[in-house]
Amino acid sequence: MQTHFEQELAELKNKLLTMASHAETSVTNAIKALIDRDDELAQKVDADDAIIDHLEMEIDEMAIRLLAKAPLASDLRLITVAMKISQNLERVGDEATKIARRVQDLNQEPQLKPYVDLPNMAKIALQMLKTALDSFVNRQPDTAREIIPRDKEVDLLNKQLHRELASYMIEKPSTITRCLNLMIISKSLERIADHATNVAEEVVYLCEARDIRHGG
Amino acid sequence: MQTHFEQELAELKNKLLTMASHAETSVTNAIKALIDRDDELAQKVDADDAIIDHLEMEIDEMAIRLLAKAPLASDLRLITVAMKISQNLERVGDEATKIARRVQDLNQEPQLKPYVDLPNMAKIALQMLKTALDSFVNRQPDTAREIIPRDKEVDLLNKQLHRELASYMIEKPSTITRCLNLMIISKSLERIADHATNVAEEVVYLCEARDIRHGG
Repeated sequence: MQTHFEQELAELKNKLLTMASHAETSVTNAIKALIDRDDELAQKVDADDAIIDHLEMEIDEMAIRLLAKAPLASDLRLITVAMKISQNLERVGDEATKIARRVQDLNQEPQLKPYVDLPNMAKIALQMLKTALDSFVNRQPDTAREIIPRDKEVDLLNKQLHRELASYMIEKPSTITRCLNLMIISKSLERIADHATNVAEEVVYLCEARDIRHGG
Repeated sequence: MQTHFEQELAELKNKLLTMASHAETSVTNAIKALIDRDDELAQKVDADDAIIDHLEMEIDEMAIRLLAKAPLASDLRLITVAMKISQNLERVGDEATKIARRVQDLNQEPQLKPYVDLPNMAKIALQMLKTALDSFVNRQPDTAREIIPRDKEVDLLNKQLHRELASYMIEKPSTITRCLNLMIISKSLERIADHATNVAEEVVYLCEARDIRHGG
């Protein structure tokens, strides 16, 4: 039978998964709004950010309450890791909002060209985030470790796209505003991959009590 | 007489202040490197980031150890706040590094024009960060609260500069690469102000046990 403390800990984890699902949906919607040129969906992403923000505050509150009762060092680790994951998810939500705002700007001008790289970057970043969360739920440090090198892949795609857009701007100065908006979206996706990497590093720390951040 | 726990808590706070001082120096150096077109100083900022990263890991380790012994709810709050401040400082260090890398890029071309807005933004952001840390040390939630509206000031400066640089790029496409680098620096300074704001919000939470993030 679960103790009351264990029940509360399970509740904390559930809330974190709810938050993750909201954050993932917002990123998916933001990119869908980009491709479909859908202002309404972009506005929804913006509005939904309040839900994610609220979940972060609830998780922090629960976490602090639970820290006071945590009997084991491993529980302390789990709770602080939950707080850190929640902070990363909150930032994923912020990035989704940033993308959604750029989309609304982009929708005021004709589309520059079909989007290939951005949906691809989004797909990788979301996959990283999803796998990182799964590795948290199932306590799989090896799965978490596998995510980390993918961050470089997304970094590279962002750099390539940045360079491509910069050349485009030089050739056709009339596209500058649109190119800048696309650069910001690309950068946001790169940051979402960073957050997924942070989550993965926290999972390794949780499972192995070893800090692998900063090449440690 | 201080208990052993209190001594350790004081040590945690000292380490945090050391970290803050490194982060502030790195931002100051990054902007100095921009103005003086000093590649060597920019490289130093990049190298010094490892010190900041290492301090973050040390603080987290101390914090988790202390959480296990914290006798009071207020200690738990202090320790989790210290962890969050440390995370923000680590990101300030990252932004300084980002600025330093852009500076090295900018140094390969003639200077576009004298820098006025960027040093001004840096000054405000650093002042915010310093005041936020002081309000933490002296437990002054009112001082911390006063910082928060200044974030909008830096946001506005960043938006203005972004717009100005975008127009400049349209007029003179040969300046595009330099303008992009300056935009990235401006964005980094805006983020440093965000981190200072986060620290201030944590101080209010610490002193008043009230979460004022997200307009709460």
